[in-house]
Amino acid sequence: MRKPEKLESANLREEIVAANGLIHRRALLRGALLSAGIAAASAGIARADDGVGADAPDWMKTPGRPFSAYGTPSKWQEKVQRIFTIAPGRAGTGVSRTPLHLLEGTITPGGLHFERHHNGVPDIDPARHELFIHGMVKQPLAYSLEALMRYPMETHIHFVECAGNSGAFSSPQPPQITAGELNGLLSCSEWTGVKLSTLLAEAGVNKEAKWAIAEGADAAAMSRSIPLEKCMDDAMVALYQNGEAIRPEQGFPMRLLLPGFEGNMNVKWLRRLNLTDAPVNARDETSHYTELMPSGKARQFMFLQGAKSAILKPSFGMTMKGPGLYEVSGLAWSGAGRISKVEVSADGGQTWAPAAMNDPILPKALTRFRLPWRWDGRPSTLMSRATDETGGTQPTRASWIALYAPGQGYHFNGIQTWGIEVDGTVKNVYA
Amino acid sequence: MRKPEKLESANLREEIVAANGLIHRRALLRGALLSAGIAAASAGIARADDGVGADAPDWMKTPGRPFSAYGTPSKWQEKVQRIFTIAPGRAGTGVSRTPLHLLEGTITPGGLHFERHHNGVPDIDPARHELFIHGMVKQPLAYSLEALMRYPMETHIHFVECAGNSGAFSSPQPPQITAGELNGLLSCSEWTGVKLSTLLAEAGVNKEAKWAIAEGADAAAMSRSIPLEKCMDDAMVALYQNGEAIRPEQGFPMRLLLPGFEGNMNVKWLRRLNLTDAPVNARDETSHYTELMPSGKARQFMFLQGAKSAILKPSFGMTMKGPGLYEVSGLAWSGAGRISKVEVSADGGQTWAPAAMNDPILPKALTRFRLPWRWDGRPSTLMSRATDETGGTQPTRASWIALYAPGQGYHFNGIQTWGIEVDGTVKNVYA
Repeated sequence: MRKPEKLESANLREEIVAANGLIHRRALLRGALLSAGIAAASAGIARADDGVGADAPDWMKTPGRPFSAYGTPSKWQEKVQRIFTIAPGRAGTGVSRTPLHLLEGTITPGGLHFERHHNGVPDIDPARHELFIHGMVKQPLAYSLEALMRYPMETHIHFVECAGNSGAFSSPQPPQITAGELNGLLSCSEWTGVKLSTLLAEAGVNKEAKWAIAEGADAAAMSRSIPLEKCMDDAMVALYQNGEAIRPEQGFPMRLLLPGFEGNMNVKWLRRLNLTDAPVNARDETSHYTELMPSGKARQFMFLQGAKSAILKPSFGMTMKGPGLYEVSGLAWSGAGRISKVEVSADGGQTWAPAAMNDPILPKALTRFRLPWRWDGRPSTLMSRATDETGGTQPTRASWIALYAPGQGYHFNGIQTWGIEVDGTVKNVYA
Repeated sequence: MRKPEKLESANLREEIVAANGLIHRRALLRGALLSAGIAAASAGIARADDGVGADAPDWMKTPGRPFSAYGTPSKWQEKVQRIFTIAPGRAGTGVSRTPLHLLEGTITPGGLHFERHHNGVPDIDPARHELFIHGMVKQPLAYSLEALMRYPMETHIHFVECAGNSGAFSSPQPPQITAGELNGLLSCSEWTGVKLSTLLAEAGVNKEAKWAIAEGADAAAMSRSIPLEKCMDDAMVALYQNGEAIRPEQGFPMRLLLPGFEGNMNVKWLRRLNLTDAPVNARDETSHYTELMPSGKARQFMFLQGAKSAILKPSFGMTMKGPGLYEVSGLAWSGAGRISKVEVSADGGQTWAPAAMNDPILPKALTRFRLPWRWDGRPSTLMSRATDETGGTQPTRASWIALYAPGQGYHFNGIQTWGIEVDGTVKNVYA
């Protein structure tokens, strides 16, 4: 990293920390836009006289809307919805993505959590749903939802990411789609539920048991083999999501939560855990969710989602409004633990500056990062690179691609790059 | 606190930490219900043979529902809605409460955030909304939403609590209503926005300025006087709530967020900040939100929400299903900072045990606490008592009541008590 050079101006202390205008993450952006010489009108700021605000807008002249039993977003936000590659309304298998580029912070509202279904969303009567624990256990057990509600619970904020997230980066040409379309098989919620280890201890795990075959109560009976070690570690039978009962699309009335493991293993509508001494080789761990290697062989059971990050602001579909100060903002995450560092480059990876990371930095959760950037109006290439507390970090896209057979798109965690053009448009580029 | 006595059983290590069955917060509840001698059937657990789960339920036999653009809770959760004291559908002034007793964790989903409106919810066109900063400033300014979007942002999880929350405890007889009805003018969200100090610095605050008069763009033009010191500390112009644009009922497109200060001051639909050298004595800081003292005088400008807690499980409306192990769970919070300790008593306050507090414990945010409890089936009185990092704690209800004139209900933070009866019903009692 280059030695920082220091600039001082009357109202704005800018410490340049990497080439092409990246500014120290703790810079006090006092008088951020105006004092930085941004034309007020172009920034949407009006210098006013002291009579400002004397004229009340229309909506202050009539009583507003009444109270509501369960609120919804503003009608002005109707474009902020999940992103489909197939038309909404279709059942069966598919995905919808979280519009990450339209959101802020780290929590995903329940209505915008990404979906991955294999035969639609089952309509489960919670009073009739049971969770079975059987197979290599001393006493097979069947739990009602009411029973689980009596157990000690834990609450944790964790992301869930589909193994296929960002798979579009495996295409030969950089896809010109939004950050949500690229990375939106990723959401983050506050989950509350019962530790799976509590229930397994109650059933009594036999010594031969090495795996638990988790089955969902959807029409696909979606199944995955889960290593027993993970079941006894931080696995949870989640009952609540962001404070309320888990949403139907995320597994109502209960889902398996395996913090940091690929989304598909976090079996929704959890119905059975069958303890076995070997994996079941279910469809979704043989025909899908394996990594095809250059040799033609496929790697199976690559569970962990690696260290990863994406810049969301600016990103494809947005237009920079002329030279000046901007905040670069995005998300970083790792299935291995906490994010320890996020670096940003504005010169295509030649120089890097550490971004500010928003507290609290939680393990296996999304971390928001931000860095002020003074864009000089020239073509620029913005990148972010996350490192986690285990030392895991992001390879370049080229290094990542070289590991696999062409077209292999699972577990992409390469560095992503936005190209900013002179006219302010933002494009996905392979740097 | 009494010296703990130790019990050991084959599968369950129970360390009694306070009288009447309170168990150490780190107790390993292995085989929690069955090994603890709870009848399986009464707990909703069935001892099964290994063929369990062979019969697929109805909802596995047909394709499920399709993908959706913006999800909603399960139809089985339709009773989980905001609680009205007036009928839904009425505009004007009033409240709706968060059903805290039906939720878990600490985040409030946007649809269930409590409401307090003074003339309904305005329908604001975000492209036409402006935030004015004027009065005792060097340069009055008008910000569009688009302009604010360019500023450096911060993300923080904070509660908002109405000053009138829990005011029902000032009534002479303990009200037999749910924990949500008692305490549900309280919600907690992840907020993202621009620090107010950044904008004030841009306008340039004159030396005489001591207050900012915040005005909302609702039909009540709801206004409050905010000390300048708070504006320059952690105050935020919040634009996002739980990741998405702030909800209409919480101030779309922007609200003032004053972490830890009474809800009414967190002016929604924020339209103006008029810097002055004196408070404006608005309706909501003279006729409301003042504390009537025994002398007949009222205290004004008691901004901070004190250390407080409430047990939500068990609580009024729930029925204990016979003697046995239960988890006592609730929320603690303080406007002064982080919660440092939550204690629980099962014997009406004679002995207390420290509850487990769920990480992360964040300043001016809700903290979930939990403690295992073996109820022996006899009448019991459950209490919780929170202490914050500044040493602030909860007085008894009687001590709190003695401070004020009869019926004064603002800023109640006394200890709350549930009475458990032999038949398992839960009542609000004044202990």
